[in-house]
Amino acid sequence: MGGTPGRMKNFAHLLMDELDYKLPVGSEISEITSYRFSMYKVGPVLSISHGMGVPSIGILLHEIIKLLYHAKAKNPVIIRIGTSGGIGIEPGTVVISDSAVDGLGNNFYEVAVLGKKVRRPAVFNKELIDEIKSCVDPKNPYETITGTTMCANDFYEGQGRLDGAICDHSESDKLNYLINLKGRVVNIEMEATVFAALTHRTGIKAAIVCVTFVDRLLGDQLTSTKEQMEDWQKRPQKLVAAYIKRSLGKSY
Amino acid sequence: MGGTPGRMKNFAHLLMDELDYKLPVGSEISEITSYRFSMYKVGPVLSISHGMGVPSIGILLHEIIKLLYHAKAKNPVIIRIGTSGGIGIEPGTVVISDSAVDGLGNNFYEVAVLGKKVRRPAVFNKELIDEIKSCVDPKNPYETITGTTMCANDFYEGQGRLDGAICDHSESDKLNYLINLKGRVVNIEMEATVFAALTHRTGIKAAIVCVTFVDRLLGDQLTSTKEQMEDWQKRPQKLVAAYIKRSLGKSY
Repeated sequence: MGGTPGRMKNFAHLLMDELDYKLPVGSEISEITSYRFSMYKVGPVLSISHGMGVPSIGILLHEIIKLLYHAKAKNPVIIRIGTSGGIGIEPGTVVISDSAVDGLGNNFYEVAVLGKKVRRPAVFNKELIDEIKSCVDPKNPYETITGTTMCANDFYEGQGRLDGAICDHSESDKLNYLINLKGRVVNIEMEATVFAALTHRTGIKAAIVCVTFVDRLLGDQLTSTKEQMEDWQKRPQKLVAAYIKRSLGKSY
Repeated sequence: MGGTPGRMKNFAHLLMDELDYKLPVGSEISEITSYRFSMYKVGPVLSISHGMGVPSIGILLHEIIKLLYHAKAKNPVIIRIGTSGGIGIEPGTVVISDSAVDGLGNNFYEVAVLGKKVRRPAVFNKELIDEIKSCVDPKNPYETITGTTMCANDFYEGQGRLDGAICDHSESDKLNYLINLKGRVVNIEMEATVFAALTHRTGIKAAIVCVTFVDRLLGDQLTSTKEQMEDWQKRPQKLVAAYIKRSLGKSY
């Protein structure tokens, strides 16, 4: 799964190429788009958009986990592919999350249930991380690393940016904060805690593979060309497609 | 603004009818759809989808408030139209939010900024609430009320539902919780705190007008027909269109 319908449609097409998956003559890729999420199906693989932020992906995860259960899916694997901001790493680096923290550094997903705070541990599956890492193409001209991902609830002030509609901190406040994050967090996105928590709790193997678009220690704005960013966006997709191809063997 | 592209496109069309707004011959309604949000423009009115949950609408609000500022928009008004679950009120009732609380009952939007909790008061504009209320058609066969809206960060366990992928509480736990909410909260949705907080802080008049689809004291499932729900969805749209029509006078 990933943030936007467009990206997940692209991934479905990339996967068809990788798997050499032939559609029946005259038919189109299976596509279910609703007002809320979009879903594409390639053989036994669902490619689904989850929107932005913890509540949006949380809704989708509840629904997809129920769907997999009722469909009697055996040992399903859920992988989120996306984009993120890097902390002290080269833009274009691919990050496989090995732990997730929220904006306060907590290693859990906190949600109010019946008026009380409930904390669910945000834990990733180490075996799956290793399996995905072993699919990295050694010829890649970029790095693929593992590390801690911070899940923010806001893109602007919640990630220390200065260019939102509201900002009460200075450039140096931001830099002090980000320098302090370095070494503890390698990238920032907006879904990791709830993703790790809900899949861990329901016993589903799951991973997050994101590319970084910027090194936040050097700046906040995306300065790369559109072509370069499109190329970067494909990096997690290619890695996950390679993992899927190897996992499926000839069973699709 | 509202949750989904489809609803905001419908609203743009409803508004064109209400305002008797004619497009130049051969042209289509102005539409900008991206992978993240969709925007439709009818005269001086933008109709924009915001996705689901606090982080998603938070991103959009930061960006729209900046856009309005740079466009030098004079006294802009932002209204969210949507759907919600009711607490002890008839399904189909229209609720104009007069205050917002989070899932713990707090009347603020809390966000982690530079690793520390920041609380921003979630306050609505009383003048705008009265202006919208005065546009209610007395012939409506349903009620339009004001009240406190609870903003949840999850649709399933975060709203006490039992049918998510995870549920650690019982039906009676849920009912006790909802009965206790009654009188303090009239409806539950997923965006109110950040919406009230960011617009209040930036001095923009803003309101939320939601229809309720279910009385959570009587059940969790939507049992109404599709036609009925489509009719209900139009109720906030019609009220907001009437307010816009009156506000614009003949100036569009």
